[in-house]
Amino acid sequence: MNFNRELFVLNNSIAELTTSIEDYFSNRSFDQSPDNLYEPINYIMSSGGKRIRSVMTLLGFHGYSDDYSKALPLAYATELFHNFTLVHDDIMDEAPLRRGKPTVHSKYDENSAILSGDVMHAHVFKILSDLISPSALDIVRRFSETAILVCEGQSYDMAFEDKEEVGMEEYLDMIEKKTAVLIGFALESGALLADAKPPHANHLYMFGKNAGIAFQLQDDYLDLYGESFKVGKQKCGDIIQKKKNYFFVKAMELLDDEERINFKELYNSQMHSQERVQRVLNIYDDLYLKNYIAESKAAYMDLAFSHLSFSGYDSNKVDIIKKMAASLADREL
Amino acid sequence: MNFNRELFVLNNSIAELTTSIEDYFSNRSFDQSPDNLYEPINYIMSSGGKRIRSVMTLLGFHGYSDDYSKALPLAYATELFHNFTLVHDDIMDEAPLRRGKPTVHSKYDENSAILSGDVMHAHVFKILSDLISPSALDIVRRFSETAILVCEGQSYDMAFEDKEEVGMEEYLDMIEKKTAVLIGFALESGALLADAKPPHANHLYMFGKNAGIAFQLQDDYLDLYGESFKVGKQKCGDIIQKKKNYFFVKAMELLDDEERINFKELYNSQMHSQERVQRVLNIYDDLYLKNYIAESKAAYMDLAFSHLSFSGYDSNKVDIIKKMAASLADREL
Repeated sequence: MNFNRELFVLNNSIAELTTSIEDYFSNRSFDQSPDNLYEPINYIMSSGGKRIRSVMTLLGFHGYSDDYSKALPLAYATELFHNFTLVHDDIMDEAPLRRGKPTVHSKYDENSAILSGDVMHAHVFKILSDLISPSALDIVRRFSETAILVCEGQSYDMAFEDKEEVGMEEYLDMIEKKTAVLIGFALESGALLADAKPPHANHLYMFGKNAGIAFQLQDDYLDLYGESFKVGKQKCGDIIQKKKNYFFVKAMELLDDEERINFKELYNSQMHSQERVQRVLNIYDDLYLKNYIAESKAAYMDLAFSHLSFSGYDSNKVDIIKKMAASLADREL
Repeated sequence: MNFNRELFVLNNSIAELTTSIEDYFSNRSFDQSPDNLYEPINYIMSSGGKRIRSVMTLLGFHGYSDDYSKALPLAYATELFHNFTLVHDDIMDEAPLRRGKPTVHSKYDENSAILSGDVMHAHVFKILSDLISPSALDIVRRFSETAILVCEGQSYDMAFEDKEEVGMEEYLDMIEKKTAVLIGFALESGALLADAKPPHANHLYMFGKNAGIAFQLQDDYLDLYGESFKVGKQKCGDIIQKKKNYFFVKAMELLDDEERINFKELYNSQMHSQERVQRVLNIYDDLYLKNYIAESKAAYMDLAFSHLSFSGYDSNKVDIIKKMAASLADREL
């Protein structure tokens, strides 16, 4: 087998999915009244993003059935939900920019952002309940459970800001809820819509959830070592904002009592941010945290792939989904 | 027939429903983590309120089936949704008090109020998708459609603040969406759960929606002429906040061009509020607006009762629901 040729086919498959998604999305823009409510939704939905959750939904479907265009409404609902959470999270985080553009509450106002988010959330369930499938009610139930976990994850993340210390277990639980379960659900819901057997769909969920944790760990990694400016993000933003991310939590775990006190003091100090960032990075280097995070990511990807092998996913198509997951965990942007 | 005895039975029926609701609600409080997310929900859900939408859900069920306790989860979901909208509306309106107590965002903070509201919304759909009924998916679909309308109604209401003039048609459309459709849906969903025929359930929805408009008109009336202080509301709060309610809209419709200009100027003036309120009230009196609103209310109630007569509602039980609707439209608090 010609490896390069295979890679070309795989890349093409993902590109084809993404094109289908963008075509479908552009036809689904909200043209109803009131404008105040729907314009912010069209704004955020057309502001780009990698459409990872939509691609995952189509890939979930694709493993058990051929015509993935049937899963486009579901793929749209998943992305609409994700964008709703971004709109509300950005209010809570007082974030001025997202994907290099003003956030919804900055461009419009906070009330519009709250209400447009709420109606996005309601539209998600309208789309799901319109699915013509014997699994529609199961998909609604699993989506609502996922939505609950996502809110719980965001709540833990906000609570971490006021906590002095966060344990690794708590941290991993938070990112699982806030980020990973939705990636898992995107795959699972696609599988359910394609009439996959429930245990198969569940293994696909576990595949996605564990790949999603690796994906978030990569996010933490890229914040420090990536070319974040290319996607409009501030380099080392997590350190500057004193976020309790993987690196902070791991450092706290590895340092001895005295070092831990000094590190915490440094992390929370009012020192000029350039100098503080450099000193924090030095500690991370001394502790070889890059190695720890790489190991942790690899372990989650192994677990993910083990679940994938139990998922009954079409063996002729499984390379595409493997590649997609690997590319998420190793992405550079 | 002894009229007093009948009234006693009717009152008892509503009281019995309310007791069932409160018992059920007190057993459904959220005891899961994180506290930051769920405590505000327990706070608002236990802060009283008339539970109108829950009573309506049970009454919707009761007209087609006997054991209304089967509809308690649905009644709870309807009330949970209503309270979610209150939590978010209170942020948008910067309201400090609700039912005489601090609003969620005042007692906790705005971020908690946003996120707790979001998870309430998600829990609503979880409860609906757990209903064991062949109508569960229909109920989810109708609920999501209702939720969309409620958001649209709130959006129109906010937009009215920045509009100089609002026509009666727009105003009635706004209160229909913001308030009335949820009352209609509460009844409809109860009926669907009790396996009522869809056209019957739809007539019950129309009954509830039109009674809901009358209910909201009564709200506007009570703001001016009720004993609002008893429920912790400011008397003539709508005039003080310069809200475009029924009275404002009707006055604008009835006044001639010159009077309209003066009235608008008065309504929006910086004049000491006591004097402004009195002058506005005088204009309303001169225009006999009390009569207009009473007529309008009566017309909506007539329409409501006409729909009720087509709804196939159990004739042995219909007096209870008629009384409940009439008491909403004529309530004094």
